[in-house]
Amino acid sequence: MRIVLIGGNGTIGKTVAAGFKEGHELIIAGRTTGDITVDITNSNTIETMFSNLGKVDAIVGIAGEAKWGKFNELSEEDFYFGLKSKLMGQVNLVRHGLKHLNPHGSITLTSGILADDPVIKTTSAAMVNGAIHSFVKAAALEMEDGKRINVVSAGTVVDAYEKYQAYFPGHLPVSMEKVVAGYQRSILGKDNGSVIRIYN
Amino acid sequence: MRIVLIGGNGTIGKTVAAGFKEGHELIIAGRTTGDITVDITNSNTIETMFSNLGKVDAIVGIAGEAKWGKFNELSEEDFYFGLKSKLMGQVNLVRHGLKHLNPHGSITLTSGILADDPVIKTTSAAMVNGAIHSFVKAAALEMEDGKRINVVSAGTVVDAYEKYQAYFPGHLPVSMEKVVAGYQRSILGKDNGSVIRIYN
Repeated sequence: MRIVLIGGNGTIGKTVAAGFKEGHELIIAGRTTGDITVDITNSNTIETMFSNLGKVDAIVGIAGEAKWGKFNELSEEDFYFGLKSKLMGQVNLVRHGLKHLNPHGSITLTSGILADDPVIKTTSAAMVNGAIHSFVKAAALEMEDGKRINVVSAGTVVDAYEKYQAYFPGHLPVSMEKVVAGYQRSILGKDNGSVIRIYN
Repeated sequence: MRIVLIGGNGTIGKTVAAGFKEGHELIIAGRTTGDITVDITNSNTIETMFSNLGKVDAIVGIAGEAKWGKFNELSEEDFYFGLKSKLMGQVNLVRHGLKHLNPHGSITLTSGILADDPVIKTTSAAMVNGAIHSFVKAAALEMEDGKRINVVSAGTVVDAYEKYQAYFPGHLPVSMEKVVAGYQRSILGKDNGSVIRIYN
C-alpha cells in the first residue's frame, strides 16, 4: 500500500510511521523535514505535494495546531489560528487529496479527546476537534469509488503524558500501541465515517 | 429577566421570541431589523451592540449561516464563510457578551442536528455545528460568577420542514414547542455545558 503521512515527525506521527514501515511504501510529509514538504496552513502547498506524489492508497493527516489559553485571554485571531491550521489544514488535505486517492483508498484525520471531554484553556482546541468529527461524518456520505474517511481521536498519549498531565486531571494516558491500532483500523479496515475514539 | 436574542427574526428565532415575550424584557437584535442591529460576522458590531445594551441576564444566539453544497464543489472560501458566520459569530457573541452578562446569567447558542447526524451537501454546516458543541463544553468549564453556557441543537423544525425535507430522508420534523422548550431549559434552568438535543 502506498501511504502518505502528513505530520510524520510529531509524537504520534513518528509512532504511526514506525507501525507502517514494514510492507508498505510510506512517504512522510513534514513542514521542513520528511520525504516531501508541505505547509498544511497553505492549500497551494497541499496541491503541489499531491501533484508531485501521484496516486496513493492512503492519506494520513497528523498535523496542525491550535492555541491553548484561558478563554478570556484568547483573541479572535487565536481562534482563527486553530481553524486555519488543524481544521482547514485537514479539510484541505481531503479536498485536494481525494483527487489523488486510488479507488478503495482511505483518508485518516486526527482530532483528539478534547472534542468530547475538554479541560480548561482548550476552547479553541476542543472546537477544532469537534469540527473535525462532524466534518468526517458528513464527508463520509459523499465518498465515491469505495473511498473512505475516518478520524482518530486519542486521549493524552503515554509519550506526551509528562508534558500534559497537569492539564488533564484524572485522565489516564493512552498507550502508543492503542493509538497505532486506531490508525490501522482506519487504513486497513472497512470503516467509513467513523470517529475512532482511543481513550482510557 | 433582561434577554437579548440575536437573530430573532428567523424561523426559530421568531418562535423563541414569542415564547419569552411574557414576563421578560426581550430585546431583539438583527442584521437589519429588530430593536438593535448587529452583524455577527463583524465582531466590532457585536462589541458596539453590547456596549449600547448594558447588562443583560441572558444572551441567546440564533444567527449565522453556512454554505450547503456537494463536498467536491465547495471552495475553501465556502468553508470559511460558515466558520466566520455561524461559528466565530457565535464565539464572538460569547467573548464580548460575557462582560455584559449579569452573575448567574446564561448564554445559549444554536447549532443543529447535522453535527451528530449529517446528510449529503452538509460538510461545512456539520463541521460548524460540531465545532459549536465542543466549544460550549469547553467554555462551560471556565464560566465564573455562576454564569452558564449551553447550546440547543434542533432537528428540522416543523415550520421549515417543507423546505428541507428532501435533504433529510427519514427525518421527522421537530415541533416548535419542543424547540422553544430547549431554549427555556438553557435560559431558565441550571444547565451549564449542555448540548440540548431536540431531535425526533
